[in-house]
Amino acid sequence: MIEIRVEAEVKPTEDVEKVKKAMLNLVDVSKLSIVDLGGGYKLLTGVSNNISSLIKLHRLLRVERILDTARGIMLKSLVGGNTIILKFHKQSAYVGKASLITHDDESPLGPITLTVTTDKVREVIDWLAPKTSKGRPLWESPIPKV
Amino acid sequence: MIEIRVEAEVKPTEDVEKVKKAMLNLVDVSKLSIVDLGGGYKLLTGVSNNISSLIKLHRLLRVERILDTARGIMLKSLVGGNTIILKFHKQSAYVGKASLITHDDESPLGPITLTVTTDKVREVIDWLAPKTSKGRPLWESPIPKV
Repeated sequence: MIEIRVEAEVKPTEDVEKVKKAMLNLVDVSKLSIVDLGGGYKLLTGVSNNISSLIKLHRLLRVERILDTARGIMLKSLVGGNTIILKFHKQSAYVGKASLITHDDESPLGPITLTVTTDKVREVIDWLAPKTSKGRPLWESPIPKV
Repeated sequence: MIEIRVEAEVKPTEDVEKVKKAMLNLVDVSKLSIVDLGGGYKLLTGVSNNISSLIKLHRLLRVERILDTARGIMLKSLVGGNTIILKFHKQSAYVGKASLITHDDESPLGPITLTVTTDKVREVIDWLAPKTSKGRPLWESPIPKV
């Protein structure tokens, strides 16, 4: 089992479709929903129970050469549990780039937050972002069966 | 003579029309132009040489009861010259509210920046935001002839 959840706030001056595009540039989710938070603010949420939703991100982490950073953040966010959290710069995502952030205020209009919960969390991390030597992956695992 | 200039950045996930609306909710400018900054970022600029462009703002400063704050910021931004600068929260402006900010990072996606240059700058400040006693204006001047 795997639960993939991706969230982003849509600010009043933003275009819902553009925020959707930014989100889908990172993660392929089948179900998208939008909730009105009041005052012109909305919350866009995508969910998936299929690890293949993360294949796009798997590729982007390599294209952007951020495997070490991604692995570090994912291991840190585990805190003994089975959930990993990654936050991405929303404006970069819109132009198809995966840019990891560590503080929400690094991303104008708030980040895109990806939460992955699975009992095979170590396998998923090792698949998404393996250890590297000078940035080159030490291994490439097949997509985990979750 | 008066030169009124209002500027806002349009981030990739934003809607140009919504940022325009936010801007025009504060200041009535006749000419709007948009410049591509690259990477999906744009700069929206409105200009006017007519003080009546500021009538909307004149009203909002009273509705929002921010005369003292506005006056303080305008006097501070003068620094011996003839230009006043006010920055507004873009998301609040979109819903028709004038919310002054002192640091750019207070406004998600950057602020709306208003610059007013005139040789009668004191008169314009006294008209826009007179001194108050407990928030109530001590005077209300007619619109300056600039």
